[in-house]
Amino acid sequence: MKAALEYIAKNDKQSIDELFDFLRFPSVSAQSKHKADTRACADFLVKHFNHIGMQHTTLYETKGHPIVVSEYNQDDALPTLLIYGHYDVQPAEPFELWHSPPFKPEIRDGYIFARGVADDKGQVFAHIKAVEACLKEQGALPVNVIFVIEGEEEVGSENLTEFLQAHKHSIKADVALISDSAMYAKDQPSLCFSLRGMLYVELFLTGPSHDLHSGQYGGVLRNPIQALANIIAQLKDEQDKVLIPGFYDAVESITDQHKAYLDKVPNTDDALKKELNVDSLFGESGFTVNERKWLRPTLDCNGIVGGYIEEGAKTIIPSKASAKLSMRLVANQDPDDILNKFKAYIYSLQPEGISLDIKAHTHAYPAKMDVNSKAMKAAEKAFEAVYQVPPFYVGEGVTIPVVADFKRILNLDTVMMGFNLPDDGIHSPNERFALRNFKKGIEASLHFLHYLGASGC
Amino acid sequence: MKAALEYIAKNDKQSIDELFDFLRFPSVSAQSKHKADTRACADFLVKHFNHIGMQHTTLYETKGHPIVVSEYNQDDALPTLLIYGHYDVQPAEPFELWHSPPFKPEIRDGYIFARGVADDKGQVFAHIKAVEACLKEQGALPVNVIFVIEGEEEVGSENLTEFLQAHKHSIKADVALISDSAMYAKDQPSLCFSLRGMLYVELFLTGPSHDLHSGQYGGVLRNPIQALANIIAQLKDEQDKVLIPGFYDAVESITDQHKAYLDKVPNTDDALKKELNVDSLFGESGFTVNERKWLRPTLDCNGIVGGYIEEGAKTIIPSKASAKLSMRLVANQDPDDILNKFKAYIYSLQPEGISLDIKAHTHAYPAKMDVNSKAMKAAEKAFEAVYQVPPFYVGEGVTIPVVADFKRILNLDTVMMGFNLPDDGIHSPNERFALRNFKKGIEASLHFLHYLGASGC
Repeated sequence: MKAALEYIAKNDKQSIDELFDFLRFPSVSAQSKHKADTRACADFLVKHFNHIGMQHTTLYETKGHPIVVSEYNQDDALPTLLIYGHYDVQPAEPFELWHSPPFKPEIRDGYIFARGVADDKGQVFAHIKAVEACLKEQGALPVNVIFVIEGEEEVGSENLTEFLQAHKHSIKADVALISDSAMYAKDQPSLCFSLRGMLYVELFLTGPSHDLHSGQYGGVLRNPIQALANIIAQLKDEQDKVLIPGFYDAVESITDQHKAYLDKVPNTDDALKKELNVDSLFGESGFTVNERKWLRPTLDCNGIVGGYIEEGAKTIIPSKASAKLSMRLVANQDPDDILNKFKAYIYSLQPEGISLDIKAHTHAYPAKMDVNSKAMKAAEKAFEAVYQVPPFYVGEGVTIPVVADFKRILNLDTVMMGFNLPDDGIHSPNERFALRNFKKGIEASLHFLHYLGASGC
Repeated sequence: MKAALEYIAKNDKQSIDELFDFLRFPSVSAQSKHKADTRACADFLVKHFNHIGMQHTTLYETKGHPIVVSEYNQDDALPTLLIYGHYDVQPAEPFELWHSPPFKPEIRDGYIFARGVADDKGQVFAHIKAVEACLKEQGALPVNVIFVIEGEEEVGSENLTEFLQAHKHSIKADVALISDSAMYAKDQPSLCFSLRGMLYVELFLTGPSHDLHSGQYGGVLRNPIQALANIIAQLKDEQDKVLIPGFYDAVESITDQHKAYLDKVPNTDDALKKELNVDSLFGESGFTVNERKWLRPTLDCNGIVGGYIEEGAKTIIPSKASAKLSMRLVANQDPDDILNKFKAYIYSLQPEGISLDIKAHTHAYPAKMDVNSKAMKAAEKAFEAVYQVPPFYVGEGVTIPVVADFKRILNLDTVMMGFNLPDDGIHSPNERFALRNFKKGIEASLHFLHYLGASGC
């Protein structure tokens, strides 16, 4: 490993130059004007994988942007690591808020500024550079490696699930590694023990066939806004418990191990109140803030509209009212099961005189990591070796569907090692990635490959 | 009265021609491009009052459109009738839906089609023609008359209250007559025993200082949409009773006389369901539909908005949510008192972590007519004489603030004799007024003047 670390240090400038080449592609998957740029970025990756000495690199076509798969089989006896990432980026608009052009990377104050540098090109590239160091310096890898780098993460990974289904017998790996998230804080790495899933639904209520004069008809029929408010009010109790019957049936209770992890994470409630500008936090009784964010399911109304919403007064009983609702799910809740329970409950609340329609927008499974696996311990050791502190174990409240897909389709556990920082401005103007974290990311990746090779998965 | 009736019959065509002149003015009070037209319409009225022989006609300037006042003092010993109406009209847009131009009146199938013909020019003109018949044929009026015809009814009568306050000592009348409403049905006249008042408020709730990612923060803080739904759900119970403490304190119970009146009005619940396209009606338990529409206060949410309301899914906990709410009030509820009670209740429901603001938009007092007055009996007799059936006594769910103003400022009871029909399309394209009702309106007005003169108020 020593020689590979020296290779990394020696090739520091070269690595940054190559990353800059990667960053110059405006691979904005959401914008059709950048379709050719996005493909060119995939082609760059294929060439680069060949350049560093990977054995087989393939560009797989999808209905959207291609998926780049690159393999190096060192030894069938060694474990195989699937490294997932994405080469597509968020749109850079609004351009006028950038201090340097989003696709002309620039270093200032120890940070690389460019669209996608933190999310996710810099993190993907750290792993590529670690693999390169092994191959160039040792002529071998400590584990077998399969990179799966997609080009549609920022548009919902629309074709990835289908790709994984189609190739589930040829993609033979033992564990997955994703670096597409943040460390807990500067120089405080973290490993993720859970991700929440999601169910997003929309409720449409209709009362009278057209808006009515509230003077003429007030008192005569049900108002769909009132009916909607009554339904929403019955979704949660005063302790913020979700009232959908069976909603918590499959929820795993918080283990002593999780509690021990959470005890090590500093209490940031006061900082959070200040950040959100609220005088008190609120959530399900009996659980701490971090438990509520990471290990408990929630339900939120994301939008509501009905009747007259312009300026001033208009006296109508509206014909329609609707609301968008999302539920964040935790292991082992099944979004399809929750959708059925949600529908049954909502229809049980439907009042006479109001018609009701429920549209399910999207759903994603929650994910739970195996924190006791050898791979997770290898990641822990790798972080500690590079950052000199043990990582926190934390949850993520957000949804990263690929993790559940890896488990469901490939039966792979995932390790998430994030190298960016919470304030790196992903999805925002002036996205940045600390040079320090790019370099430490390469080193941590190298350590992880070695520890994994030594210990297995 | 016989001679006057003959005069009316003889001058039938002339009356219609003059009404057409009145209708040709696009006196759209809401549109500044029609400011000169609106004034020209007021000038026309002044000239016409002089033409029919009224003693004193004055055009009073206001901050907006002028008010025309025309008086004829027959004898101080006779009662004085104030006839209120308005010469302004609603905007005629969308023009393309009119079958004939809105300001070029036309007769088709027994109806006059023109903007404002039913609301309110045709009804105002019926009274003018009745007064003219008396003056031309008898040289005298059976009562003293003061016309007060304003030009801002369609924009909220913004300057009328101030005008009445300023002239409350000079406008000496015994009873007011308003014809700005509909008959119960074709050939079934009706007299109004009550009007509802109104209180219109808007609630603004703020949670976090900006929209948050519902994955990252779901479970951590209060969602203002949820808080708003919880508040709205607590405004009414399952029997549609308003839960604001003290809301019903001042409400008069429904009298036996009101019940007797309501018993005579046919049950139209099934027709109403069909019209509104709902499978059931709904309202305060223990009261009939007509009681709920006319004699019971209500509360309705007129609009609600918060969070993401465009197409598709966006996973946010919104910063803000708001709702517009209106309460229809009945005698003797005081809008100021109800506003205080509303505010106290809402603030008692305010959850921690949510800031709350209440804006009062507008309010109007409810009105109760003296159904046992001589004036009301005179109106009843006049209707019966002309339509050959006794009028129904009904309430109106809507708010006509001038009626409460007449009572509060001038201490005048009001009689409402409406001549248009519920399907005359006021405020809509192809507004119409039946020729038959214009003519019967003139006759009914003439009878009313005579009966009032004979009986007093």
